[in-house]
Amino acid sequence: MTTQVLALQGNEALADALAARIKGERGNVLVRNFPDGETFVRVEPDVKDNTVIIAATLFQPDSVVMPLFFLASTLRELGAARIILVTPYLAYMRQDKPFHAGEGTTARHFAHWLSSFLDGLITVDPHLHRIHSLSDVYDIPAINVASAPAISAWLRQHYPNAVLIGPDAESEQWVSEVARNADCPFTVLEKTRHGDRDVSVSVPHIERWKNHTPVLLDDIISTGHTMAAAAEHLRSAGMPPPVCIGVHAVFADNAFATLQQADIGKLVTCNTIPHPSNGIDLHPLLADALETLLASA
Amino acid sequence: MTTQVLALQGNEALADALAARIKGERGNVLVRNFPDGETFVRVEPDVKDNTVIIAATLFQPDSVVMPLFFLASTLRELGAARIILVTPYLAYMRQDKPFHAGEGTTARHFAHWLSSFLDGLITVDPHLHRIHSLSDVYDIPAINVASAPAISAWLRQHYPNAVLIGPDAESEQWVSEVARNADCPFTVLEKTRHGDRDVSVSVPHIERWKNHTPVLLDDIISTGHTMAAAAEHLRSAGMPPPVCIGVHAVFADNAFATLQQADIGKLVTCNTIPHPSNGIDLHPLLADALETLLASA
Repeated sequence: MTTQVLALQGNEALADALAARIKGERGNVLVRNFPDGETFVRVEPDVKDNTVIIAATLFQPDSVVMPLFFLASTLRELGAARIILVTPYLAYMRQDKPFHAGEGTTARHFAHWLSSFLDGLITVDPHLHRIHSLSDVYDIPAINVASAPAISAWLRQHYPNAVLIGPDAESEQWVSEVARNADCPFTVLEKTRHGDRDVSVSVPHIERWKNHTPVLLDDIISTGHTMAAAAEHLRSAGMPPPVCIGVHAVFADNAFATLQQADIGKLVTCNTIPHPSNGIDLHPLLADALETLLASA
Repeated sequence: MTTQVLALQGNEALADALAARIKGERGNVLVRNFPDGETFVRVEPDVKDNTVIIAATLFQPDSVVMPLFFLASTLRELGAARIILVTPYLAYMRQDKPFHAGEGTTARHFAHWLSSFLDGLITVDPHLHRIHSLSDVYDIPAINVASAPAISAWLRQHYPNAVLIGPDAESEQWVSEVARNADCPFTVLEKTRHGDRDVSVSVPHIERWKNHTPVLLDDIISTGHTMAAAAEHLRSAGMPPPVCIGVHAVFADNAFATLQQADIGKLVTCNTIPHPSNGIDLHPLLADALETLLASA
């Protein structure tokens, strides 16, 4: 039995890294569209009785799901024994309850659907809030890879004098974990609400960190507003422009350009969504998780 | 129990026509996208215990399937008793076998998936070739509405002096049916193969039809090549520019502009895919089928 690694478009580097680690064969997927917009998929070489790994991040997921679905269902038809998705950014985790009348829990619907045509899933720091674990919604083995060790290692190498700063109280647990492994101090921004729209933000004990490099951490950089506001608060508090680190480089609309123009220092993201800001490589941790999952057969 | 009719964007006229016929309530669907591209769906009013009809043609299907999937799964979560899709153009019927190594039967995969979250389906003239009936691949009641009666009625009204022409031998059965109900003669173009790339086309018994209006019929107008070539053959045979009728207005790339510039007369399609060429209304036949399906509960 061979293990084969396939990439949907844009995920070739991840697939290469996974194949190299597990000594798998890199296969090819041809995806194109018929005149009415239907997706066509062809895979090579033969996958019969093999374990097949699909590398496909789920950023802008609606353009990925049909190629992914047809690839997986084709692999199944062709006799693949086991199909594992490695998706560094897992979509559809945030609508984890109906927030208003007429809404559904789409996180559950999507997870149930993916579970129906996959045998395993590996992702990085998914949004887990009301859904506490991937196993709450995924009926298949699903591994949640933490980006924290890779971020800590990157900080030790590049900013040994960092002070980590979380944008809000909710980030404290995660930021403290990154700080502990990076062997550096941390704090989180404190919001004080004076009224409906009157919120002041302060940096606790700021005088302690005057000689450190401030490093802002956030899990998803989406509109960039959180990051830009936090940087502004640091500046008001008399700190130098911060290094900004995000796990998932969503960068909606012109968020990246806006952040680049803001008064921040370096902006670095993990490579869960391919982006020019990617600087922290998570492929080794994803390969670790894949080895673990394959060994659990 | 109420019956509610919902439209995905672009299908409002169909939903209005269906609701008017079955005396159903027109509901609303809000579909929008989150910054990372995820689809968000909200429906109103309350659907609990109701039968819900979704009007959604599946042209450019990959942009429709996620809104459709989340709408249907949300309706289910909200307690809808029965969910029926009215989709005048049904996608993913043509890959009805693996044509080459490494391919799958995506027609079956897609049908199996739709069947998993719907209770019934109504469409118009799907591509049925190796799959002989929708019930071969759909596990739910699925009605195939024939466009032929509406095309015949349109011809009787607009071109009582028509001679119908099918572009090839395969079209003969369908063209003859339209002709019979339109009470007009028909023929199909004959291809004679002289070599690999040397094919001549002739119009049998062309001298009989000199005083008729030639009307070309095809099921799908995709690239427009079949239609343009057939029109050219008619012209070579000394006939006037033909009226061209297509069921499904796919018009890939610049096909519509190309056909408009070709030497044809009027170009008319059925309204299974919203398009400026739509001239033959199939909403009444779809409403007939919906009444039938609802009565079969």
